[in-house]
Amino acid sequence: MNFNHQALTELPQRYRANFINSLSGIRQAVLVGTKSANGQTNLAIFNSLMHIGANPPLYGLLFRPDTVRRDTLSNILDSGTYTLNFVRSVDYPRAHQTSAKYEQDVSEFQAAGFTEEYHDGFAAPFVCDAVVQIGMKFEQRIDIALNGTILIIGSIHYVRLPDQMISEEGLVDLSMGDVLACSGLYQYYKVSEIGRLPYARP
Amino acid sequence: MNFNHQALTELPQRYRANFINSLSGIRQAVLVGTKSANGQTNLAIFNSLMHIGANPPLYGLLFRPDTVRRDTLSNILDSGTYTLNFVRSVDYPRAHQTSAKYEQDVSEFQAAGFTEEYHDGFAAPFVCDAVVQIGMKFEQRIDIALNGTILIIGSIHYVRLPDQMISEEGLVDLSMGDVLACSGLYQYYKVSEIGRLPYARP
Repeated sequence: MNFNHQALTELPQRYRANFINSLSGIRQAVLVGTKSANGQTNLAIFNSLMHIGANPPLYGLLFRPDTVRRDTLSNILDSGTYTLNFVRSVDYPRAHQTSAKYEQDVSEFQAAGFTEEYHDGFAAPFVCDAVVQIGMKFEQRIDIALNGTILIIGSIHYVRLPDQMISEEGLVDLSMGDVLACSGLYQYYKVSEIGRLPYARP
Repeated sequence: MNFNHQALTELPQRYRANFINSLSGIRQAVLVGTKSANGQTNLAIFNSLMHIGANPPLYGLLFRPDTVRRDTLSNILDSGTYTLNFVRSVDYPRAHQTSAKYEQDVSEFQAAGFTEEYHDGFAAPFVCDAVVQIGMKFEQRIDIALNGTILIIGSIHYVRLPDQMISEEGLVDLSMGDVLACSGLYQYYKVSEIGRLPYARP
């Protein structure tokens, strides 16, 4: 099937949103944990985590326009800290449930059945049984004028993962932890490593 | 294993680069096709493709700082067009080979064994046997001052993929096409769908 720009523009809104989002590829599912100024915890699923750089260690997360209530974004901007949690593929129904629009005074940790955990004086809550836990500090907000989305860049201040998932060279094998991946808003995947290749030379 | 910010800072440079990059998650492997002003084609593997928005349809790609020759980035900025190609998981050795630093007058299409294909008057070359082909037009460059990386945002002007990969609601099942995923610079993965869930409600 082929689509040109005109055809994409004329697609029904819901179909286009599904199509463009799921077409953009399979990505790591990430549960983002935050806490509001009055102590309310929040947990929400994202698949927009990106590697910005290793030195200093920086990751980015893309947020939809803040024209409606965005608890995760508000909490990151207010508190300056947030956590990134990778869960196992079997946890996809619970992970998906964190995308529901709960009232502001409901914690998605409880609503979806995850347990809070705290480390190293970090204010933001980690997911207790996550395979990988990463603690982040907010660094920069970049507003994308083209469509009102917001790129949040943070630095890594805490990492916990199983020893056996890290190779001698520092490579992390996430498939060993059976981590959950997803595409778009509704589709969940598991991953398996097929190969590891050396630095490519001409 | 735990790392705090101090421990991350003190890791050997190569180990830290591997660790921070591969820790950031599994993502779609994308071959980016471009053509220079003098007609030289180029193909390079990326895993930083991100969904920016569906209306208008916008995707982003992150580039390392342009302190060395970056053929793909130069070609996008010069020509205004580029292609995104998802290949099958069995093609991972060829896909990885496009990451080698070839001379500027060598096409990675030929060097890695892919065939160029052209559509709809698009100047940029597509990968002939890719499962998914997406034609992009450059829209905006955002420089990330924190570390010199560059976010390139483009609009989607052409899409080709197999009919049976799209559901009635517009959801694309990439695992049906056995597309290649990767993490960091060296590790390749295949994906399998484990479930599709409806819009979550409290």
